[in-house]
Amino acid sequence: MKQKSKKRRRSKSSQLKKTGMAPGQFLFTGEQKVENTSLQLMTYDKSEIEELSIDTIQEALTKIGNTNKMSWLNVIGLHETDIIKSIVEHFDLHKLSGEDILSVGQRPKLDEYEHYIHIVAKMFRIEDGNIEDEQITILFAEGLLITFQEKEGDVFNTVRERLIEDKGQIRQRHTDYLAYALLDSIVDHYFIAIEHFGNVIEELEVELLENPSDKILPNLHEVRREASYIRRSVFPMRETVNRFEKLEVPYMHKETKLFIRDLYDHTVQVIETVTVLKDAVSGLLDLYMSSVSNRMNNVMKVLTIVSTIFIPLTFIAGVYGMNFTNMPELEYKYGYLITMIAMAILTLLMIFYFKRKKWL
Amino acid sequence: MKQKSKKRRRSKSSQLKKTGMAPGQFLFTGEQKVENTSLQLMTYDKSEIEELSIDTIQEALTKIGNTNKMSWLNVIGLHETDIIKSIVEHFDLHKLSGEDILSVGQRPKLDEYEHYIHIVAKMFRIEDGNIEDEQITILFAEGLLITFQEKEGDVFNTVRERLIEDKGQIRQRHTDYLAYALLDSIVDHYFIAIEHFGNVIEELEVELLENPSDKILPNLHEVRREASYIRRSVFPMRETVNRFEKLEVPYMHKETKLFIRDLYDHTVQVIETVTVLKDAVSGLLDLYMSSVSNRMNNVMKVLTIVSTIFIPLTFIAGVYGMNFTNMPELEYKYGYLITMIAMAILTLLMIFYFKRKKWL
Amino acid sequence: MKQKSKKRRRSKSSQLKKTGMAPGQFLFTGEQKVENTSLQLMTYDKSEIEELSIDTIQEALTKIGNTNKMSWLNVIGLHETDIIKSIVEHFDLHKLSGEDILSVGQRPKLDEYEHYIHIVAKMFRIEDGNIEDEQITILFAEGLLITFQEKEGDVFNTVRERLIEDKGQIRQRHTDYLAYALLDSIVDHYFIAIEHFGNVIEELEVELLENPSDKILPNLHEVRREASYIRRSVFPMRETVNRFEKLEVPYMHKETKLFIRDLYDHTVQVIETVTVLKDAVSGLLDLYMSSVSNRMNNVMKVLTIVSTIFIPLTFIAGVYGMNFTNMPELEYKYGYLITMIAMAILTLLMIFYFKRKKWL
Amino acid sequence: MKQKSKKRRRSKSSQLKKTGMAPGQFLFTGEQKVENTSLQLMTYDKSEIEELSIDTIQEALTKIGNTNKMSWLNVIGLHETDIIKSIVEHFDLHKLSGEDILSVGQRPKLDEYEHYIHIVAKMFRIEDGNIEDEQITILFAEGLLITFQEKEGDVFNTVRERLIEDKGQIRQRHTDYLAYALLDSIVDHYFIAIEHFGNVIEELEVELLENPSDKILPNLHEVRREASYIRRSVFPMRETVNRFEKLEVPYMHKETKLFIRDLYDHTVQVIETVTVLKDAVSGLLDLYMSSVSNRMNNVMKVLTIVSTIFIPLTFIAGVYGMNFTNMPELEYKYGYLITMIAMAILTLLMIFYFKRKKWL
Amino acid sequence: MKQKSKKRRRSKSSQLKKTGMAPGQFLFTGEQKVENTSLQLMTYDKSEIEELSIDTIQEALTKIGNTNKMSWLNVIGLHETDIIKSIVEHFDLHKLSGEDILSVGQRPKLDEYEHYIHIVAKMFRIEDGNIEDEQITILFAEGLLITFQEKEGDVFNTVRERLIEDKGQIRQRHTDYLAYALLDSIVDHYFIAIEHFGNVIEELEVELLENPSDKILPNLHEVRREASYIRRSVFPMRETVNRFEKLEVPYMHKETKLFIRDLYDHTVQVIETVTVLKDAVSGLLDLYMSSVSNRMNNVMKVLTIVSTIFIPLTFIAGVYGMNFTNMPELEYKYGYLITMIAMAILTLLMIFYFKRKKWL
Repeated sequence: MKQKSKKRRRSKSSQLKKTGMAPGQFLFTGEQKVENTSLQLMTYDKSEIEELSIDTIQEALTKIGNTNKMSWLNVIGLHETDIIKSIVEHFDLHKLSGEDILSVGQRPKLDEYEHYIHIVAKMFRIEDGNIEDEQITILFAEGLLITFQEKEGDVFNTVRERLIEDKGQIRQRHTDYLAYALLDSIVDHYFIAIEHFGNVIEELEVELLENPSDKILPNLHEVRREASYIRRSVFPMRETVNRFEKLEVPYMHKETKLFIRDLYDHTVQVIETVTVLKDAVSGLLDLYMSSVSNRMNNVMKVLTIVSTIFIPLTFIAGVYGMNFTNMPELEYKYGYLITMIAMAILTLLMIFYFKRKKWL
Repeated sequence: MKQKSKKRRRSKSSQLKKTGMAPGQFLFTGEQKVENTSLQLMTYDKSEIEELSIDTIQEALTKIGNTNKMSWLNVIGLHETDIIKSIVEHFDLHKLSGEDILSVGQRPKLDEYEHYIHIVAKMFRIEDGNIEDEQITILFAEGLLITFQEKEGDVFNTVRERLIEDKGQIRQRHTDYLAYALLDSIVDHYFIAIEHFGNVIEELEVELLENPSDKILPNLHEVRREASYIRRSVFPMRETVNRFEKLEVPYMHKETKLFIRDLYDHTVQVIETVTVLKDAVSGLLDLYMSSVSNRMNNVMKVLTIVSTIFIPLTFIAGVYGMNFTNMPELEYKYGYLITMIAMAILTLLMIFYFKRKKWL
Repeated sequence: MKQKSKKRRRSKSSQLKKTGMAPGQFLFTGEQKVENTSLQLMTYDKSEIEELSIDTIQEALTKIGNTNKMSWLNVIGLHETDIIKSIVEHFDLHKLSGEDILSVGQRPKLDEYEHYIHIVAKMFRIEDGNIEDEQITILFAEGLLITFQEKEGDVFNTVRERLIEDKGQIRQRHTDYLAYALLDSIVDHYFIAIEHFGNVIEELEVELLENPSDKILPNLHEVRREASYIRRSVFPMRETVNRFEKLEVPYMHKETKLFIRDLYDHTVQVIETVTVLKDAVSGLLDLYMSSVSNRMNNVMKVLTIVSTIFIPLTFIAGVYGMNFTNMPELEYKYGYLITMIAMAILTLLMIFYFKRKKWL
Repeated sequence: MKQKSKKRRRSKSSQLKKTGMAPGQFLFTGEQKVENTSLQLMTYDKSEIEELSIDTIQEALTKIGNTNKMSWLNVIGLHETDIIKSIVEHFDLHKLSGEDILSVGQRPKLDEYEHYIHIVAKMFRIEDGNIEDEQITILFAEGLLITFQEKEGDVFNTVRERLIEDKGQIRQRHTDYLAYALLDSIVDHYFIAIEHFGNVIEELEVELLENPSDKILPNLHEVRREASYIRRSVFPMRETVNRFEKLEVPYMHKETKLFIRDLYDHTVQVIETVTVLKDAVSGLLDLYMSSVSNRMNNVMKVLTIVSTIFIPLTFIAGVYGMNFTNMPELEYKYGYLITMIAMAILTLLMIFYFKRKKWL
Repeated sequence: MKQKSKKRRRSKSSQLKKTGMAPGQFLFTGEQKVENTSLQLMTYDKSEIEELSIDTIQEALTKIGNTNKMSWLNVIGLHETDIIKSIVEHFDLHKLSGEDILSVGQRPKLDEYEHYIHIVAKMFRIEDGNIEDEQITILFAEGLLITFQEKEGDVFNTVRERLIEDKGQIRQRHTDYLAYALLDSIVDHYFIAIEHFGNVIEELEVELLENPSDKILPNLHEVRREASYIRRSVFPMRETVNRFEKLEVPYMHKETKLFIRDLYDHTVQVIETVTVLKDAVSGLLDLYMSSVSNRMNNVMKVLTIVSTIFIPLTFIAGVYGMNFTNMPELEYKYGYLITMIAMAILTLLMIFYFKRKKWL
């Protein structure tokens, strides 16, 4: 998970890059993750759908301008700020909106601008056993939806499939429903990420109960930090989805609201599950501390048993190792035998005592 | 409780099956628990009641269509999605509603659709000493109430009895009252589950105070997880019942609201009791930690007492075991006796010291 | 406090008895605590007061029906459900109300029925050094107030005195004021219970600081549970009193509201004090853990000091106890003396070291 | 702080004295702290001010009746309930108000009566290095303000000075401003009390870090209790000041509200600072526990190092102390020397090992 | 960070200086940090900008009076209260406002006065590796904005640059936008401070995991206190910015509100990050405690292993060191050899036992 925490640190320093800039200036605050910005355009209506990979932004904008169908423009890669700028200018987006697209350490939120809606969400995916997070910006207005992401690969494939294969009602509906479908897909993937995370916790738990060792402590600490990070990313989604449901704009259709309500329920469920995970992590820490105490107890018991049995015996042996001239016991024929038997009895008494104390 | 936690894990993975599906699609997210879906239909009015086990859903739907009495259709087993689909289509239910019936990892909730109410609840039963949970869906409208459950056996027997034996006012009332009676029965069973759970906690507590051992730690951890699970399942019931009380639909009668208010009070009481249980569990953990510390203390005391008494004595014996040629004490007639007496006095002083320190 | 916790367990199982019953059925959920139900009736107005012990409920109801004065009927003992049933039917009480009177594990609450007010409260009294709790039901309407309690002995004696001796304004006022006076008396007794409880905590604290032993742990745990129980019982009283103040019924007089406001302040004060007690209990637990650690520390110090001084000395003695033929020191005239002096010096150095470390 | 905690206990028992009394009866619940009740009257307007010590309450009441100026009557000592009764009757105060003046364990609050405002506040002062608290009651209406306190000495001297020396605008304003000035002075003194308390915490902290000993534990516990007490006393002041600001009575002037807003900000600041203090105290407890663990660790290290070095050496010495007839090493010329050298090497290896483990 | 904590203590005592003063009096509560108060005036409009360092306040006031442009007057150094007084009187500021400028221990807040807005904010800067905080007061009205700071050096340089170089829209806008830009710059610098703080925590974490020693405890405690201080300073900024957004005054322009909304989002993000930091610090404390326990465990293991191996061996050696006349083993030819071999086998068994217990 090393790679992970590096990325997170970046998102803090991204904020630093921007310090003191005039608001609304175009500065990408993340790291370049793809070579070239690529553009994917889908235009569709009830009857047909077209999917295009487009090279230049001008071409895309022209295409969008020439159609009456729904358009979904997906922009992958944010480091070529010129492209973003063209989009911002072409659609007359607000400067803060443009700035937010490029600033990748954002909190999930929904902003309502004069003629469009700006949604920021955080996407979690499992990649090579790690939880990868990436910021997604969704802008939508009547007939047009634009998404911005940092790198290739996203959680939207099932949405694309439903569009292409005309499954469900997605082609019958407008961009508000598409925005809902995208957010729904993001939230659905939270469950996968959380399950992955839950598995990591369960493995740690098994390891803790079966083979508790010092090496588990840094892992526990790491998991705790991850849990805290995921929780913080998921929390603002509730408010975001809630504002989505409350939107009163002409391109927001009443039929969609029921679906957003459902999405809201899912988001709440995600948050509850994450909270439960967090509790599970602190449970693990308590378990760890308890097991450390237990092991210490066992170590101490061994020490105490061995010491308590042998120290008195050694003393007795020491006594008869003294060199006094006048020690009558030493001359007795059975002196040695009696001493050894006495020691054996003493040992048995000790063992009995420890048995009764349940230390053995 | 092994079986338990497996089921819970399933309900998470159930969510996964669905990821990326178009909303409103029919996919059962649980495990098949009964061989065939079975259907139970009760039709009743003030004067008479009929109870039927019906083989095909069409027959049931016809029966329901032909009567003016109240109808309660209970569907057991959700894996034959065709049956659910027939019901959804026959009664023109919303797609999200159909999806929710089949998705068994739901949060308790109440959704108001155009012509009916959709309630999701979680049922807890004690079976073979384990707490079993199962999702119950209750749909109701004027004259008709449908319940869906995963497997046979439920908490509604007392409601059936009251219907059949015409106890109380249940036959005089409408489906809103029946829905209330079912929820009330579910909430009543929470008390049984909680009491069962409380007993487990009390047993652990007694064991902890009387015979604290390492083996109790995994049990404590398990109980803590269970408590957290129950709490999370019960919490959303408050909101659900609250929305039930606030409903403003024609098939919701004013007289029923007073009963729902009472149900609400019970739900709040359940939540408070569960919260108290959770506190009790953390109290147990503290108690465990304290008792571990105490036992450690006792182990250490034994070690310290034995060591403190015998180590100095052994040293004295060691001194007179030295082989110096010129050790006048060794030649004294009473040298040995005096040494032994000195050792005895030293031991008594030590014991006195420990007594005063209350270590003995 | 054994008896106590038994009773509490009962109140849970009382809930069980009722599971699945039709709402509004008469079933007493507690244990019989008095042999016969006894009835006390007080009728009063500004000028005169009459106090009666009445044998049959019919007689009481007739008396109440024949007077224009204020009537306070106190019913002691709930196991003869017929009597309760007569009252419920005579005054046309709601079925839920009747059920609630007999169900003794209720949360404090205030329900407003069509023609009367139903208040459930929890009464705490000190009896033989234990905190006893009992459920009190207060019903009142214009001119009539009925109280139900499980056994003899209550906290209302001062109210009775004020009625009989015409102290204050209680005789000039109506049943709303009487209800207030009873609740006020209950809340006043909370302070006594809390003070008793505070004393128990203080005793434990003194014991902990002066003579911390293992035996205190179960006591601490018990006190913690009691604190949690009291807190839970007192919390809903705030809401109850608040709803009392907000009541808008004709037999609720404006002048009384100012007094209820005052009662509300007292209730809040009780809750705050209880919360402080709870903090005090967790403070005690921390104190206990700290003192266990401290004692362990002291035990370890003794062990370490003794071991550190004598183990090296024993080693030296051991060296000169070896039987090598060629050990020149053994032959020196002052070999023994020098060795002993060296040992003494070593011991002094050790003691000095421990002094500097403040272990001695 | 002994004296302190005694007083606090009193304020609880004060509540007991009152249990079951009719509301509105005159009973002083505190301890007598001054010999005679003394009365101070200040009458002032823009142009002049008169300050009087008055012997009898009648004289004071006459004076107040005969003036058109603002009057501030300060009553010191509450045990002569007749005096309070005269005031209550003369100004036609509400019975609950009279009762509250005499009941010294009150929560800070503001009650609005028909023709006057009743404020209860808690005053903290540093006296001989202890934090002393005392209840202050402030009643005010148009042209008249009465304060009640238990004993001489208060925090109002600066207000008196400002009145006498005509500093600021206090003489130009009405009794609402005077009430504000008094509360402001009380809140200002909270800062002094809190700073005193903060100093105590800092001293404990320094002691903990430099010389952690067992004796500090009872002090820590005491400080924790004090922090909890202060916090509880200060919290209700926020609500009190807030209600002061919201008052809508003719003798409450709009210009004063801005000042009360400022007072409110100060109160919030006090609460925040107290909360921080409480955090600091739990920080101290953690620090204490950590330092106890650390010391234990150090003790154990010393024990382990000494034991680990000398126990094997003693064993070796023991071996060559055995009396077997056939032990060839004993006869070697350099047997003793070699053994001693081997022991020295072993010791050095041990020390090296401990160095590497950073135990030395 | 010593210097730091001193400053903080001052801000408490600053409150003390003021105790009992009439509100609205001019008293500087901080320490003098610059020799002379210096004044910087910027006047600008869309077309031009003038930046001046001015010697006397009268000159500045004249300049401001003579221009129709926007004016930003920055006052550095608060100890010359005459200057502040001139400003307060010249612009007819409220007395509380004047008092607040000089009182440097203020909570961030926004007060709305009749003809201007008064904002108090806390500025954090990194200076020589320490986090320095300073109070900033911002007053603004139509056409004029005044800032007050304690010493030279601030976080506003980027704002000045944008003004001078006419970057962004700052010159086109009014003082409300300038106030926003200043606050935005302050909030941006919080991120820097928090990142610095986060780095300190990360360093501690690495040190804890790699080389946990006692010396880290005071550092941990210090960091905890700092985290608590920063958190407390940042929290009220949310409310402040929120009130800024809600302002309804003629010199507050609608276009600015969108920017303030963005600033509000940033502030919330700061608060969340700080909260996460606080969690991280308590995570560190847990980690520290765990690692202390672990180290103790390891120390105990070493002690136990060494003792458990050698104490029994020493006992055996002791036995054969006894001086009984009749000990046949001593005479055996291979007695010594057999004993040594037996000891070796015992040792190997012990080692095997410890290996299986994973102590070795």
